[in-house]
Amino acid sequence: MSEQTNADVIQADNSRVLHSWSAQAHLDPFTVAGGSGCELWDYEGNRYLDFSSQLVFTNIGHGHPKVVEAIAAQARQLPTIAPATANAARARAAELVLQRAPEGFSKVFFTNGGADANENAIRMARLVTGRDKIVSRYRSYHGNTGAAIVATGDWRRIDNEYARGHVHVFGPYLYRTQFWATSLEEESERALQHLEAVIQAEGPSTVAAILLETIPGTAGIMMPPPGYLPGVGAIADKYDLVLILDEVMAGFGRTGQWLALDAFDVRPDLITFAKGSNSGYVPVGGVMVDGPIASAFDERVFPGGLTYSGHPLAAASIVANLEAMADEDVVGNADRIGRDSLGPGLHALAEKHEVIGEVRGTGVFWALELVTSRETREPVPGATIGAIKNACRERGLIVFPSANRIHMVPPAVVTAEQVERALAILDEVLAATA
Amino acid sequence: MSEQTNADVIQADNSRVLHSWSAQAHLDPFTVAGGSGCELWDYEGNRYLDFSSQLVFTNIGHGHPKVVEAIAAQARQLPTIAPATANAARARAAELVLQRAPEGFSKVFFTNGGADANENAIRMARLVTGRDKIVSRYRSYHGNTGAAIVATGDWRRIDNEYARGHVHVFGPYLYRTQFWATSLEEESERALQHLEAVIQAEGPSTVAAILLETIPGTAGIMMPPPGYLPGVGAIADKYDLVLILDEVMAGFGRTGQWLALDAFDVRPDLITFAKGSNSGYVPVGGVMVDGPIASAFDERVFPGGLTYSGHPLAAASIVANLEAMADEDVVGNADRIGRDSLGPGLHALAEKHEVIGEVRGTGVFWALELVTSRETREPVPGATIGAIKNACRERGLIVFPSANRIHMVPPAVVTAEQVERALAILDEVLAATA
Repeated sequence: MSEQTNADVIQADNSRVLHSWSAQAHLDPFTVAGGSGCELWDYEGNRYLDFSSQLVFTNIGHGHPKVVEAIAAQARQLPTIAPATANAARARAAELVLQRAPEGFSKVFFTNGGADANENAIRMARLVTGRDKIVSRYRSYHGNTGAAIVATGDWRRIDNEYARGHVHVFGPYLYRTQFWATSLEEESERALQHLEAVIQAEGPSTVAAILLETIPGTAGIMMPPPGYLPGVGAIADKYDLVLILDEVMAGFGRTGQWLALDAFDVRPDLITFAKGSNSGYVPVGGVMVDGPIASAFDERVFPGGLTYSGHPLAAASIVANLEAMADEDVVGNADRIGRDSLGPGLHALAEKHEVIGEVRGTGVFWALELVTSRETREPVPGATIGAIKNACRERGLIVFPSANRIHMVPPAVVTAEQVERALAILDEVLAATA
Repeated sequence: MSEQTNADVIQADNSRVLHSWSAQAHLDPFTVAGGSGCELWDYEGNRYLDFSSQLVFTNIGHGHPKVVEAIAAQARQLPTIAPATANAARARAAELVLQRAPEGFSKVFFTNGGADANENAIRMARLVTGRDKIVSRYRSYHGNTGAAIVATGDWRRIDNEYARGHVHVFGPYLYRTQFWATSLEEESERALQHLEAVIQAEGPSTVAAILLETIPGTAGIMMPPPGYLPGVGAIADKYDLVLILDEVMAGFGRTGQWLALDAFDVRPDLITFAKGSNSGYVPVGGVMVDGPIASAFDERVFPGGLTYSGHPLAAASIVANLEAMADEDVVGNADRIGRDSLGPGLHALAEKHEVIGEVRGTGVFWALELVTSRETREPVPGATIGAIKNACRERGLIVFPSANRIHMVPPAVVTAEQVERALAILDEVLAATA
């Protein structure tokens, strides 16, 4: 492998692999040979600081030896087995996942990723309520499969609307308010009024669930304003709806908490997870299920399933990842980095660079909203974001671009020194962009 | 791990894990500690011959050292990376998969399993045709996510019908003909007439694709009769429909061919795969894409994707699995076992046991249709199948039960001696059942 050049690998991959969400003649020529912690390197010895966590999933960092060796050990013992058999690694993974769920959550349904986690949460909600409609946000992403992509609110839904029973609402996002609000409190209240008005207009007896990312991720890391999530919980209770919180991106350390919902006074019925649960080392996801919903399928057949549900190799990677995160206080590190280093550093950049319209985030989960004018808040064009991303990469920093934003989302093991280096690069690039 | 008892593992798993397609208070108490080739063992030293390949996916057998070590090596080098980067293991996996596709297939889109492979094939078909409807068989299974489960024809669809644009037809199945046919030729012709009549009645200008398992798997291993698949191809051509062949279960050695379609004169536009491609050691699947469809997304964004598309660990397991299958002539072995050993052996059992209504299959892909009477062809009740499955297991044989059938679907590395042992057990169990 080490004799390969970057160009070899790029040519071999891009000529034969159809890539996600892309025009195939315009792929981004970049390759990675290996990684450790927050660092990546290519085949020619160039090194990068990864402030993307790839697609925001390598929470424990690249090449963590305990997770790597757990995968190797499980592969030697029993890499795969059918979901109907009982499996020790799967049982332990479920135990560790449930330790992070709210009191009373009793079971885990394992999937291959976040999309099918949301598919199965939606399925459970429909089955226990006997109703169809799923209410979710326009600014959201829930996955690429049939129901998950239609629950999604962002542009990726548009070409894929082949499922019924989905209703979208606007959520709280004061910087681009849909509610003519002028304060966080007003935004929160009005977003709740809007949510309830839509549910009433749809007919509450037709609605199965409210599905929300606890903190919307790719859509912009919009922190829920005070009162919003408790208010959503109250609406779900009032109309007897299932509340599904999607923690696929926000969960397992990203926010400086084990689950993003830990920072809010809200109790969902179902929680979907994937990425951070095993830092993406093996494809996996799942649904944490509250007791009453779990027991609804004691005597009734749960009509969902998949070949690799509770896959031993995936389960072993969850076990090692969650044990190492606890042993090494990775979640505490994410919290401290957010408070003492990455958060303040990004706010300091905003003082210097007019192009930064807003800084939002927590832990190792931050977005910079870039605008052509702080007055009009007009988003910078895509080309500007592309240029910033490339200029950062040329200087050895990988960021996560999304619409008119740069997301700064490093592994949760990032150090203050690495944050400083990353911010210095971004500072330089933003200065050159202006 | 080795100090655990079977009961420990079962209790730990079943108390915390929600299991696929099951009522959770009635799970099947069984656990596996390890395996090698066609053999499995539990925590108490009991050994089993695996004639289920779990969910018909461990084509290369359990614990294959080359696949295991390739997983360990890739985990150490680079377990995971975002799909947008170019990756060497992924490029090689695509190359090896495309070697088995028909001439002219140019790209692979990787997914996490068979369901999202079918989701993305359906997506491609809709996008390139600009039409909605997907025609598939009632007796079929295509996966558990939004569109895949509604494309599915079997009972698992019924509780999950939340997607639009799906139309179902009956396929050829002479033993339970829906066409009042009395010969395979007649069944084939009439099934084609029925398919074309449905497409005409739906309006060909509304139909995007025909989606079929090359050989329906869990639905009963119904071998396509002479002329059927070529006839389907001709209908797809006539109405300019995309033909998607689902090779998730039948592909990569199961039938004694690299792909099941190799035995038939048919050329699809898209082929979905999963299980056999890496024997399920890491969750993975994908779509093989014919040149014209692949190039339709050169300048146009492909609006589908997933976090773990082309996951390096999964890709490395495909590479090792397909290389080992070629080196060890695993596909040739499956073909010989089917012709010389498993096929003749099952037909011999049918001579002895009245309960066997029909024997169908090829390679290491066989179904026994069990009936209360050869005259009426009435399916045996589920309890009979459960009793047979349990009696086999008590004697050390794992079979794959489905509806009123016992499927005999061992790893493709099975030996004639193992087939003989398995058939002797089944013979004894069927004698006791009668």
